[in-house]
Amino acid sequence: MSDIPDIVIGRLPIYLRELKRLAHEENKLTTSSHELGKRLGISSAQIRKDLSHFGEFGKQGTGYHINYLIEKLQEILNLTHEWPVVLVGAGYLGHALANYAGFQPRGFSIKWVFDSDPSKIGGTVAGLNIQSVNELKSTIARENVKMAIIAVPVSVVQAITDTLVESGVKAILNYVPVHLNVPEDVQVSYSDPVTQMQRMTFYLE
Amino acid sequence: MSDIPDIVIGRLPIYLRELKRLAHEENKLTTSSHELGKRLGISSAQIRKDLSHFGEFGKQGTGYHINYLIEKLQEILNLTHEWPVVLVGAGYLGHALANYAGFQPRGFSIKWVFDSDPSKIGGTVAGLNIQSVNELKSTIARENVKMAIIAVPVSVVQAITDTLVESGVKAILNYVPVHLNVPEDVQVSYSDPVTQMQRMTFYLE
Repeated sequence: MSDIPDIVIGRLPIYLRELKRLAHEENKLTTSSHELGKRLGISSAQIRKDLSHFGEFGKQGTGYHINYLIEKLQEILNLTHEWPVVLVGAGYLGHALANYAGFQPRGFSIKWVFDSDPSKIGGTVAGLNIQSVNELKSTIARENVKMAIIAVPVSVVQAITDTLVESGVKAILNYVPVHLNVPEDVQVSYSDPVTQMQRMTFYLE
Repeated sequence: MSDIPDIVIGRLPIYLRELKRLAHEENKLTTSSHELGKRLGISSAQIRKDLSHFGEFGKQGTGYHINYLIEKLQEILNLTHEWPVVLVGAGYLGHALANYAGFQPRGFSIKWVFDSDPSKIGGTVAGLNIQSVNELKSTIARENVKMAIIAVPVSVVQAITDTLVESGVKAILNYVPVHLNVPEDVQVSYSDPVTQMQRMTFYLE
């Protein structure tokens, strides 16, 4: 499946999110690429083309059975089981992430929180013990964790990343505004509010 | 400038961020597209092509003068003055955003915080008074605010967005995992950790 453009893969979770809203909040059973596209600001042709990479999910006239498409997208995105996640960093952002109710219904669960600050270690956040980063490596190996979220100071982020990668983590969501060096088989996704805002200011004035 | 692909615009803040690191943390004066590319995991040809949309910034052999390129990128991205920002939502994430030290050095300042929860209104976060969302419209109009960050519950996010847009906001960073409907002249950028993680799980296993 590696010949499918990453930008297409990036849209699948958006489709999944909206389909779940249609099913669970609006109690709909079927939808169309037109309806989905209108709700997401994406053309219906784009949606049909994106989905066609993975098979035939809808029919001319009847459209998509929402629950079936949800199931298929979850299979494609490897969301048929819950992913346990390590969180590194128990500052303000770490607290917000640990307390975020949106992970579990969508396939993820932060199960361990680490920090290097002695005044935080031993405390709790969202019911989880804050452990020393010294235990990061052994926890990841023992629990076979593949995903991590990083919310630490810039000065330590590459060292933390190296530890995560050595321990077997294969996907990192990085909230620290700096590029991470990782091997090719490790995924990194970046979240930096300032780069997002600077992209928008280009279009202002 | 609107004929420049948005994906190019999206890379400029990444270049700016790395150039500032080179200048301020490593005290470098010059760099090359090769050095920049290696540090960012982007090809040097891509960097040269991206920058060529805006002029001639480097020379064969000598490369880029970092401070000059920083200045030019800040002009291109409309970062020659600080942008005041409204934050709507004073929950865990709102607290993390209000306390985030990374905005001000990069051109943004959260100056007002709003919430609808009576138990929060009148309190403070990061030294700012938490005001009622009822005052959102008048504040934005009076202060001529163009940018907003939203971190509110899903159920109210479109109503808040409508108020922001009616009041004159032209760029929104949305932390709520739902697509927003806005007029064409309003920019929206999305931050949803789960869609980012679901994009990565596609490549795992």
